[in-house]
Amino acid sequence: MMKRARIAFNGAVCEAVVEENGQLRLPNGWVVKEEEVVWLPPVEPRTIFALGLNYADHASELSFSAPKEPLLFFKGRNTLIGHRSKTPRPADATFMHYECELAVVIGKTARNVKAEEAYDYVLGYTVANDYAVRDYLENYYRPNFRVKNRDASTPLGPWIVDKADVDDPMNLMLRTYVNGNIVQEGNTRDMIFTIPFLIEYISSFMTLQAGDIILTGTPKGAVNVESGDEVVTEIERIGRLINYVV
Amino acid sequence: MMKRARIAFNGAVCEAVVEENGQLRLPNGWVVKEEEVVWLPPVEPRTIFALGLNYADHASELSFSAPKEPLLFFKGRNTLIGHRSKTPRPADATFMHYECELAVVIGKTARNVKAEEAYDYVLGYTVANDYAVRDYLENYYRPNFRVKNRDASTPLGPWIVDKADVDDPMNLMLRTYVNGNIVQEGNTRDMIFTIPFLIEYISSFMTLQAGDIILTGTPKGAVNVESGDEVVTEIERIGRLINYVV
Repeated sequence: MMKRARIAFNGAVCEAVVEENGQLRLPNGWVVKEEEVVWLPPVEPRTIFALGLNYADHASELSFSAPKEPLLFFKGRNTLIGHRSKTPRPADATFMHYECELAVVIGKTARNVKAEEAYDYVLGYTVANDYAVRDYLENYYRPNFRVKNRDASTPLGPWIVDKADVDDPMNLMLRTYVNGNIVQEGNTRDMIFTIPFLIEYISSFMTLQAGDIILTGTPKGAVNVESGDEVVTEIERIGRLINYVV
Repeated sequence: MMKRARIAFNGAVCEAVVEENGQLRLPNGWVVKEEEVVWLPPVEPRTIFALGLNYADHASELSFSAPKEPLLFFKGRNTLIGHRSKTPRPADATFMHYECELAVVIGKTARNVKAEEAYDYVLGYTVANDYAVRDYLENYYRPNFRVKNRDASTPLGPWIVDKADVDDPMNLMLRTYVNGNIVQEGNTRDMIFTIPFLIEYISSFMTLQAGDIILTGTPKGAVNVESGDEVVTEIERIGRLINYVV
């Protein structure tokens, strides 16, 4: 199983392969411990796509009806941070929740791709925690920037798992733990719009580029988090992404 | 008056200064005619911000009430094309309209900037034509991706005019001409949220970077365009941006 990370170590940014024992192999052959590095988002996308209300149970939880076409929105690149990093909770917020999401990493330029060929354009998968500050949520679906585009509000990682190592990305368990307690559980098979559908839909009018990512939405289970909480978003076969609310 | 363009010429992309006679001076000293180059968007933003309904008369024209806080949305980088380029009109669209907009180019990293200092963070200005395919417009404010994020749907340019050459960016005439006939006219003084306000607002929770752009919205005057039309969006003191609908 190939896990590829992007890290900062010894004064430079580089790719690293994560070994069975959790240590990191650098391109020059050095093997280092994870405590010695800064984990970065495993990819630098040109464009970050996200889905609103792509699990019916989460739409219901927010009192919205399920959308008839994908509720796409962009995320700013200012939002991305890596594994084991800290996300600030706005001082005036009363409700900020995590969102465990499967992130699809695009592998090559995609335009007018049919669903049947969609996986040819996928490089692999990683985990996103698409935090939302609920206080600012409005009732017209696409979240405003104060909900979803704050600096450092979207941990991504720890690594990319190659497509070849994931038999069926549409059947993976997602779980979130706050301070060790499970608070969110779901399965990617409950997505309203599937990965192949989304790639066909987006590429019908936009060009997807290698490195772009699609955050595919989150299931039910949004609970408020507070400063000091450890939030672990975990996806079966992909990885465990650890973040701290500060 | 300093006008800075980005062009492709002689097998390379470079910056060019536009001279009084319209010719382009390259960094190596060559002077070339504009017919000899491909105009590119004058900046490559990391993030493209756009404003919905930032002129009250345009909000009214679309039957929306004016927003109480800025209706920000992102544009994908796939949308940008340069001066004298072509924008495809979707075959099934019944209503596609231009939008002449003042584009503010950020000059340096901005975070928690106050309105009074906002212009310190501006590099200059250019013209955007933020086409919209009205057919896909929904009634919950932030336009969906099929309205505003099609490939090549946002001409930008022709050049950046330095901030120092624009006395008051909040008092500039905007005009759009289709096949030589004036169809849209307005003034930046009618913006609901001003440039300094927008920079303060965005930078209160996001980091703006050098090269990022803010498309500040469009006034009343949206008229359908058809394949074959020449659309000129013009802003006083900034420039005339020419685009062809195909």
